[in-house]
Amino acid sequence: MGGKSWGSRALVFWCIVLSLIHVSLGSKARHFKWEVEYMYRSPDCLEHVVMGINGQFPGPTIRAKAGDTIVMELTNKLYTEGVVIHWHGIRQLGTPWADGTASISQCAINPGETFKYRFKVDRPGTYFYHGHYGMQRSAGLYGSLIVDVADGEKEPFHYDGEFDLLLSDWWHLSVHEQEVGLSSNPFRWVGEPQTLLINGRGQFNCSLAAKFSNSSVSQCKFRGNEQCAPQILHVHPNKTYRLRIASTTALASLNLAIGGHKMLVVEADGNYVQPFAVNDLDIYSGETYSVLVRTDQLPSKNYWISIGVRGREPKTAQALTILNYFPTSASILPVSQPPVTPRWNDYNHSKAFTKSIFALMGSPQPPKTNHRRIILLNTQNKIDGFTKWSINNVSLVLPPTPYLGSIKYGFNNAFDQKHPPDNYDNNYDIMKPPVNPNSTHGNGIYTIDFNTTVDVILQNANALAKDVSEIHPWHLHGHDFWVLGYGEGKFREEDEKKFNLKNPPLRNTAVIFPYGWTALRFVADNPGAWAFHCHIEPHLHMGMGVVFAEGVHRVGKIPKTALACGLTGNKLN
Amino acid sequence: MGGKSWGSRALVFWCIVLSLIHVSLGSKARHFKWEVEYMYRSPDCLEHVVMGINGQFPGPTIRAKAGDTIVMELTNKLYTEGVVIHWHGIRQLGTPWADGTASISQCAINPGETFKYRFKVDRPGTYFYHGHYGMQRSAGLYGSLIVDVADGEKEPFHYDGEFDLLLSDWWHLSVHEQEVGLSSNPFRWVGEPQTLLINGRGQFNCSLAAKFSNSSVSQCKFRGNEQCAPQILHVHPNKTYRLRIASTTALASLNLAIGGHKMLVVEADGNYVQPFAVNDLDIYSGETYSVLVRTDQLPSKNYWISIGVRGREPKTAQALTILNYFPTSASILPVSQPPVTPRWNDYNHSKAFTKSIFALMGSPQPPKTNHRRIILLNTQNKIDGFTKWSINNVSLVLPPTPYLGSIKYGFNNAFDQKHPPDNYDNNYDIMKPPVNPNSTHGNGIYTIDFNTTVDVILQNANALAKDVSEIHPWHLHGHDFWVLGYGEGKFREEDEKKFNLKNPPLRNTAVIFPYGWTALRFVADNPGAWAFHCHIEPHLHMGMGVVFAEGVHRVGKIPKTALACGLTGNKLN
Repeated sequence: MGGKSWGSRALVFWCIVLSLIHVSLGSKARHFKWEVEYMYRSPDCLEHVVMGINGQFPGPTIRAKAGDTIVMELTNKLYTEGVVIHWHGIRQLGTPWADGTASISQCAINPGETFKYRFKVDRPGTYFYHGHYGMQRSAGLYGSLIVDVADGEKEPFHYDGEFDLLLSDWWHLSVHEQEVGLSSNPFRWVGEPQTLLINGRGQFNCSLAAKFSNSSVSQCKFRGNEQCAPQILHVHPNKTYRLRIASTTALASLNLAIGGHKMLVVEADGNYVQPFAVNDLDIYSGETYSVLVRTDQLPSKNYWISIGVRGREPKTAQALTILNYFPTSASILPVSQPPVTPRWNDYNHSKAFTKSIFALMGSPQPPKTNHRRIILLNTQNKIDGFTKWSINNVSLVLPPTPYLGSIKYGFNNAFDQKHPPDNYDNNYDIMKPPVNPNSTHGNGIYTIDFNTTVDVILQNANALAKDVSEIHPWHLHGHDFWVLGYGEGKFREEDEKKFNLKNPPLRNTAVIFPYGWTALRFVADNPGAWAFHCHIEPHLHMGMGVVFAEGVHRVGKIPKTALACGLTGNKLN
Repeated sequence: MGGKSWGSRALVFWCIVLSLIHVSLGSKARHFKWEVEYMYRSPDCLEHVVMGINGQFPGPTIRAKAGDTIVMELTNKLYTEGVVIHWHGIRQLGTPWADGTASISQCAINPGETFKYRFKVDRPGTYFYHGHYGMQRSAGLYGSLIVDVADGEKEPFHYDGEFDLLLSDWWHLSVHEQEVGLSSNPFRWVGEPQTLLINGRGQFNCSLAAKFSNSSVSQCKFRGNEQCAPQILHVHPNKTYRLRIASTTALASLNLAIGGHKMLVVEADGNYVQPFAVNDLDIYSGETYSVLVRTDQLPSKNYWISIGVRGREPKTAQALTILNYFPTSASILPVSQPPVTPRWNDYNHSKAFTKSIFALMGSPQPPKTNHRRIILLNTQNKIDGFTKWSINNVSLVLPPTPYLGSIKYGFNNAFDQKHPPDNYDNNYDIMKPPVNPNSTHGNGIYTIDFNTTVDVILQNANALAKDVSEIHPWHLHGHDFWVLGYGEGKFREEDEKKFNLKNPPLRNTAVIFPYGWTALRFVADNPGAWAFHCHIEPHLHMGMGVVFAEGVHRVGKIPKTALACGLTGNKLN
């Protein structure tokens, strides 16, 4: 198996050359060999098959320094499924083929094959990685990716220690079955998750805080080595800790709080923000935050860290772990009940948090004007009786040939050459269930002129059911965008006057609230084909995404192995 | 999506030319467009996800005439899994790339892509098709393939009507989970099937014959349109019916009987046999039979058709359906209990049946001598703590690049160039658990000189547990073989003298009995790379197979789409 092709030998040569260059600049290439596999695991104390990497779930944490190059040889050890990994928040400047999105940036890696990702982590921050093929993220294919400041650089804040909190949600029904249900008529929704996980650990059939609960759930009894035992955060008094929080949930919007402690938000999606203090923090799928926590409470006690569901009527217990003060024993439970998650539909609370986020002074500012505005209406639709999500009435179905290859090499029949629309019918009533449910499937893309500034207005609307409009966290690949503003109801021309052009936060994920709109601006300066989609896994499966392509003809040599499928596979190599 | 490449246009051109030639000879091209998908279904009255084709489970029956060409455009509608279909029993003379074996004859078809199988069904008989990637057969990817005699030709027996009985077994645990368990340490065996299915229908939580049972299982009550309601065989009195019986079980060896009726066996694996009468018929996975049944019993009654497990201690209820005599109502149950399946370990009964099969006079006779003899020892082993099946101490792990392509185009590093051995250690004691459990994984192949005659001696042995030796039905792709004989214990040189060279049956599947050997002979006259393996799905997953390659350099142009993966995908096209 395997064996080097001339192409890969050339690649190896250049890798070595580039590594030497990097080393000479103080940054370095960090080499990884990972195997993606299925394994039996008990993430929430019940045994299930999960996707893991090198025998670990969640996958290993990548730790690098800004300027380093990640060289990741990823081997697919699944039996019949392809796999890719997306490096969420890494912009892939100059390496669009390494973005890890099946059908967009590369072909899925076949079972038994190895693909080499090579990309630079150019900027310090809190990131993560995850599967981006089918619903493999929801199956457990994720992990943390932390980029420290380069040698000689400093963070704009001080801390004495840090912890990663990778948050996810977990279902007992396999992702394979979930996919079939979502694609069936009648539609079968995945429902609320059975369990929330912190660093891959949760408790389904017991609770760490049973004695504070009215329900009959029993107290968890852990010896400590269980796969579902919580990871305790061991802290010393009167120190400052950085919590790096990332949400890779398939569905759940979350709220995190620490009993008795405030949090100072300092980073969002790999960008520094103007620090602000909160008692609890909302985090949507695809987002990351860093918060600073001062351990200024009584060290003779321990404190709950609790995570609960927002934005959907919760049917899932809070996830809990413990902030353990030295020298108190970690086995001593906090004396009061865990922080109560704000009411799920208290959107004012959510909006207040989200609107508190501004870029740290000195951050890059947005261009003052745009070249193009794309308004994207988010609707839930029926297509031929199947329940879908559509953007401007197009429900995305990805083609077998990756866009990056088919655009660069001119395979015009690889996907619809007709572009989806930049706007929607002005008469559409976003407050009511769709009256034009005749959406279509499509795989056309938005072609963006290179180096232009684009505004995207994400317009929320009523879903199929009356009086229902959901939260959707939209994630852009290949870029950060500035979040210029949020509004209620339909976006109107005059709303542009209220855009924050002074200190809008730079992010890669932004939420739309029910019946509202969110305005984003980005500069199309990264040649490639980039997904922009709702980060809720079943919603993307149901078509809730678009593809932006910019300057693809400027993209350098794409590794053949990235395009060994579809039309590019048959004709290119 | 898609669009025609020049290669496929050329193919289309030749297809048209060839079709015209066929039509002029009286045979024709039969075109099919199939979509493989997952769907919810209740094969045994409990709902599960199954693999289906065009919304059907089992897949549609293919019906053709000898000499026809099947043109099958197969589209993969799965989400993240590849797929292939093997046309079991079709020798693929001249079209080895259409054999539908992932990693051997072609690359798995990626999700969203279409592959065109084109092959001739040169010979009348009872065949079937099934998935041949991972354990997708066990997930439900199978159906019947019936080839009638060419126009103007006659079968060597008469019948008034016919029925297909496609037999399978069904688990409630998904195939994905089964695969993980089989590949885990500690090993998790799939266990006995929950249900036996006849034409995709069985009853898990009720019985058609509850009133004859001592167990507490309840009587099935069907309205008739249930997905798990039995397909009744409606017959007229005093007629002769041909039952075409095929077993695509993942595990179970079966025995079929019809209350009050004898069966005359006339065909096995697409070859006519010397007719012989039986009360019950053993059928192993991968085998097909035709039997003639005379409806000479009282027409005022109905009769059970029952299928039960042989060769493993059965934990699965008999599958039942009804032979319904006109004009008796189909809803009237037979008055006596269903035929009792012979005791599972009554191997004398099994051997008596198997040894009754001889080729019909006039069938092709085997060459009188061989050029090479390959003795294949079947052992269960531990490799690095994982439980495997090995052949001459090599447990097969298929490579990502299909052998057919890597051999033809000289990608020598696509697989081990070292051939596995033609024999095993003469001192090996087949009656005891393996004393040399240090088998290795491997993907080397047996290279057979073109047009030579090869004898294969399949040598059974003791498994890992003491006093256990199992039945294995071995299936050869691309050829039929003559079954020259069966023996007890270790094959010895002098056993060759007892070979039946006069009228050995031609088959594609042959069983080895516990602690015994089976001798096969075939002529390596079909250029290609061919799987030869135990047809028990979990056993193949555990490595129980070998690959024979013969005259690969004589193989004509292989469609590019068959090789768009691995080393051939990166370099060939």
